[in-house]
Amino acid sequence: MVEPAICGMAPENEGGPVEDSCRVTFLPDNRYIVVPKGETILKAAMDADVHINASCGGAGSCGKCRVVVEEGGVEREPNPKLSQEDIAKGYALACQTRVLTDLKVTVPIESRIGDKRIFERKEPEPAHGHLLSAEDWEKRLPPWTLDPPTKKIHLVLPPPSLDDNTSDAERVKRGLAVEAGLRDVIIDYPVLQRLPNVLRQSQWDVTVTVLDSEEELRAVRVEQGDTTERQSAVAIDVGTTTISAELIDLRTGKVVARASDYNAQVAYGEDVISRIIYATKGTGLARLQSVVVGTIWNLIKSLVEKAGIEYCNITHVVVAGNTTMTHLLLGLNPKYIREEPYIPSATFFPWIKASDIGLRIAAGVYLYAIPCVASYVGGDIVAGMLASGIFNTDKLTLYIDIGTNGEMVLGNRDWMLSCSCSAGPAFEGGGVKHGMRATRGAIEQVRINPINYEPMIITVGRRKPIGICGSGLIDALSEMFLTGIINEKGKINLDLPTPRVRATEGGAEYVLVWAEDSATRRDIVITEVDIDNLMRAKAAVYAGIEILLSSVDMDVSMIDELLIAGAFGRYLEVDKAVNIGLLPDIGYDKMKFVGNGSLLGAHLAALSKEMLQRANDIARQMTYLELSTNPAFMDRYLSALFFPHTNLDAFPTVKEKLEQYRSQERTFKRAATAGGEE
Amino acid sequence: MVEPAICGMAPENEGGPVEDSCRVTFLPDNRYIVVPKGETILKAAMDADVHINASCGGAGSCGKCRVVVEEGGVEREPNPKLSQEDIAKGYALACQTRVLTDLKVTVPIESRIGDKRIFERKEPEPAHGHLLSAEDWEKRLPPWTLDPPTKKIHLVLPPPSLDDNTSDAERVKRGLAVEAGLRDVIIDYPVLQRLPNVLRQSQWDVTVTVLDSEEELRAVRVEQGDTTERQSAVAIDVGTTTISAELIDLRTGKVVARASDYNAQVAYGEDVISRIIYATKGTGLARLQSVVVGTIWNLIKSLVEKAGIEYCNITHVVVAGNTTMTHLLLGLNPKYIREEPYIPSATFFPWIKASDIGLRIAAGVYLYAIPCVASYVGGDIVAGMLASGIFNTDKLTLYIDIGTNGEMVLGNRDWMLSCSCSAGPAFEGGGVKHGMRATRGAIEQVRINPINYEPMIITVGRRKPIGICGSGLIDALSEMFLTGIINEKGKINLDLPTPRVRATEGGAEYVLVWAEDSATRRDIVITEVDIDNLMRAKAAVYAGIEILLSSVDMDVSMIDELLIAGAFGRYLEVDKAVNIGLLPDIGYDKMKFVGNGSLLGAHLAALSKEMLQRANDIARQMTYLELSTNPAFMDRYLSALFFPHTNLDAFPTVKEKLEQYRSQERTFKRAATAGGEE
Repeated sequence: MVEPAICGMAPENEGGPVEDSCRVTFLPDNRYIVVPKGETILKAAMDADVHINASCGGAGSCGKCRVVVEEGGVEREPNPKLSQEDIAKGYALACQTRVLTDLKVTVPIESRIGDKRIFERKEPEPAHGHLLSAEDWEKRLPPWTLDPPTKKIHLVLPPPSLDDNTSDAERVKRGLAVEAGLRDVIIDYPVLQRLPNVLRQSQWDVTVTVLDSEEELRAVRVEQGDTTERQSAVAIDVGTTTISAELIDLRTGKVVARASDYNAQVAYGEDVISRIIYATKGTGLARLQSVVVGTIWNLIKSLVEKAGIEYCNITHVVVAGNTTMTHLLLGLNPKYIREEPYIPSATFFPWIKASDIGLRIAAGVYLYAIPCVASYVGGDIVAGMLASGIFNTDKLTLYIDIGTNGEMVLGNRDWMLSCSCSAGPAFEGGGVKHGMRATRGAIEQVRINPINYEPMIITVGRRKPIGICGSGLIDALSEMFLTGIINEKGKINLDLPTPRVRATEGGAEYVLVWAEDSATRRDIVITEVDIDNLMRAKAAVYAGIEILLSSVDMDVSMIDELLIAGAFGRYLEVDKAVNIGLLPDIGYDKMKFVGNGSLLGAHLAALSKEMLQRANDIARQMTYLELSTNPAFMDRYLSALFFPHTNLDAFPTVKEKLEQYRSQERTFKRAATAGGEE
Repeated sequence: MVEPAICGMAPENEGGPVEDSCRVTFLPDNRYIVVPKGETILKAAMDADVHINASCGGAGSCGKCRVVVEEGGVEREPNPKLSQEDIAKGYALACQTRVLTDLKVTVPIESRIGDKRIFERKEPEPAHGHLLSAEDWEKRLPPWTLDPPTKKIHLVLPPPSLDDNTSDAERVKRGLAVEAGLRDVIIDYPVLQRLPNVLRQSQWDVTVTVLDSEEELRAVRVEQGDTTERQSAVAIDVGTTTISAELIDLRTGKVVARASDYNAQVAYGEDVISRIIYATKGTGLARLQSVVVGTIWNLIKSLVEKAGIEYCNITHVVVAGNTTMTHLLLGLNPKYIREEPYIPSATFFPWIKASDIGLRIAAGVYLYAIPCVASYVGGDIVAGMLASGIFNTDKLTLYIDIGTNGEMVLGNRDWMLSCSCSAGPAFEGGGVKHGMRATRGAIEQVRINPINYEPMIITVGRRKPIGICGSGLIDALSEMFLTGIINEKGKINLDLPTPRVRATEGGAEYVLVWAEDSATRRDIVITEVDIDNLMRAKAAVYAGIEILLSSVDMDVSMIDELLIAGAFGRYLEVDKAVNIGLLPDIGYDKMKFVGNGSLLGAHLAALSKEMLQRANDIARQMTYLELSTNPAFMDRYLSALFFPHTNLDAFPTVKEKLEQYRSQERTFKRAATAGGEE
């Protein structure tokens, strides 16, 4: 799972209705797009499929993305690449200029490189899909009530007397039964120890926190006075790369703070396999556990500070992670996850004291890990299933988390079938020469001019490019394929009239960024080896999808909805993913991004016992299909080792685009031969 | 509760049928008694109510207890007090001579001091009561099965495969469900951590220990191979003074080792009140907890060594102790136990990991503390109630544990009423000038010659006397009262013609042992102040008995059975206790010693979930009567501040004995006046 470098973003604030939005119309194409106020003109052009030369990823250093703002208000960053004269003429650098109102922008010939007549395409489809909003989520779920697994009960107890001399513990239990109808509550040992003093210091006015773990009711904390107004939970997505957490006010159910950070385990290996190897040597497991607990502790510290609450407001924590991450967090031996037949220590985990794993938040904080299904279908997927409400729909839904393991689930309210297709780390930048995680300087969007093969790129943080992240790679592949830089087998056409394609000792490559425009002062390239790795990754994902479908005698046409999970999804352009054959060509309206489904599921389970139980039910009911021994998988995989696929008919929109590109190419060549003019 | 210095004695071996018993007939009285082979002649004489001068408690140092062995075999300790000539004549020191066969023994005139014609009494009644045997216990209880709270389940699991790739934990749970019908077992966190290695090292052949805590089933340990043959529990009576423990083989239900030792907390205070005071200062509670855990650890070590087992055979521990001891063991604040209105932190305690209180026996050993009823009616009494089967009888039963707190319970299968009468520590030697615990050198039995007021004493361990323990004090009081050394108000008659009664600055006193015969080289005395303290203690107990009865409109005559608990009971002579008005005069056949009822109850709970639940039911159902605020209690108490009681008619046998003694006294005086001859 590729996760965002931008931390603490609110899923429900993204993809929802844009409050302050502006319409940007590009001339001479007369194409428009609606973007949030503050967006750069370059990004608007990228999303509107208007080509502007952009070599430095949005850093403002190459000075190539000159546009003329004809109408409307903008905010410009001063830039030495533009003279006062240029500015007087209305020139602006697209990457350094932010949209403040509706705009009309002319892309001058020098920025365009290409002929509008030739490149007039159809109105852009909502090809980037859309992220489900908070309202969308609610609609997908059955009605549920705010009924968290921990409850604070305020008790004003009658003080003991000679006539009512029941013990402190029994008095509290009596109070819980009478006031809250909670019977047979077990009082946690540390609570028993504190009880006498707290009861007397508070003059018998206390708040007891009770954990309902399904098996039992347990009083886990006692506090003086009425603290029921102060109760929070923490939901955490423990990703291999990134850990995201949110603090939820349990009275309102609202998220009051968010934080995320890299999983500090990254220093011990990028992927789950290298972590498992590290964990199984010496004290590696303890080390990895303490390291991830350290990251989580810092996040909780940050949440508490942001929200301005006390640590002791927190009464429980729900985590969701893949099977390996859950094992490492809980200190469970992950060794057999990676050895055939791939058996985890456990897939269901008891409520444990957070302090038992070294996470000392406050007295009596318990932690629940969302259960896993198998070694490579973990609690993150189960949480995503919960959050996306597949258990509540009649629609045939495919839920997919594209990452190293390429976990996916097919199903509806009646059944769920999961698999993991071991896509490998290519989409996370692994095995790719200039691959990198989606951090600052990573190329995240790419367009290539089909005439002269010049790219237009945008980087994370609009910095000078350092390398290419997953979404950038998919974009680049898609563009290279459509523009004919690579063929359907992924081979680079060295005959093209551009210095950007070249043969090297290591094989053919395409130069996405010249050294002068890169932050590394070296060319950023995509090699045939990279392409091969990416092809294998996408083939594994697609073959997995096909196997899931075929095992229930279905095919891609029957998918009613495709949910793309993982923060990766937020940056993925689905049309590009379809173009290369990573995702099935089923129409963009059926595709939705679920964002961080894992965190959303943990969030729901933290808020509702019923939802937590649903997560358990999902994990219990989900069937796991082992692909590594499935002979049909290998067949499907080999068939998918083409762009987009050996069966091009399964990708009708790609077929159409290819025909359109080829025809445009012919038109252009004819025009060029005829000596075309502007 | 006064407890024995002799450790590790088997309750079921005491009071049961005596395997090797000998009949000792004393001449010229022609009284006989049956004693175990190996008993000393002195002890036999004491129990047969045959007076022999004995000043050194059985140490062999005073040389006064000379007897002639007429017939039968004995084993003599060589003793300088007897010449070869004496031995040739058949003389022996009663305290240094052990009975090997049936005997005829003449008590010569110099040892007797008294006239047999005058002192011929009725045949001795079985006044010492009898200790319930194992068979007796079983009869008192409803049928119960050996079904301990922990169970070892041997599982031979199918190894995982690609077709059966459920997690290790779920595989074990499946096995437990299939093999043992145990569903929804929670796997303890440390077990989860060990599971993968143990399963694979054992090739899927493991034994899982499951704790059934009523609320839940919890897998608490996993071991390689089949260890079901090796499962033990430890039952512990945590007494204020002594801790007794037994190791029980859970396959057979048999006790395989016993051990007991002083509670090392004794160094921090003799009684519960001083322990509570210590515990509430600074780190006192932690100190007392660690000290008692240390004692328990040593006992367990000793049990394990005696039985030749491994620590890891032990799967659970059940403890029973009074409320304060239970609090200190569990580290619970005992402060409010001693402050009105006398509220314990808790009366019910969850199953906890033994390691949570610092008792590291083996992985996954859990501990249960028998619940308490109130601050001064603890788990020891509840355990005793369980063991004595009062919940299973129609007989109106009074269960009494004479000690500092004088806990007692009145009831039958339908109801149970308890109280604690704060008797004070007098019966434990506290507040008594030469009082001491029942350790070596403590005078435990006393007879006084009614003619010349010379005493006959036996000490624990037959050492030179150091002081007097509880049973010795009761004996002494009874003898002093019947012989007229003290009157019914406890005042010493200084007019008696014996140097043993004397006035001192501190008040009148009776010399039980002269300095020359004592180990301390000082006179051992009983003072009027001592007598006053003992009178108040016995009055509190008796008043408590009366209040329990009167609160249900009953009186002592309606008691069907009186059960005397506490190891104290083993040494107590009930007729003496009745003589001073400590126990009601209801006939000795109704009185039984239950020995260490607390340990027996813990034992039963360790063996049977059903019995453990019964203990909980008993604690829940028992009504507690607070005496300290009961005005009727004070009235009853004041009435009991006499020997045996202001209402002598309530003590018909004592009344009869007094009349007999007085008439014998008159007869003797007449005889003496007339110049009686031998």
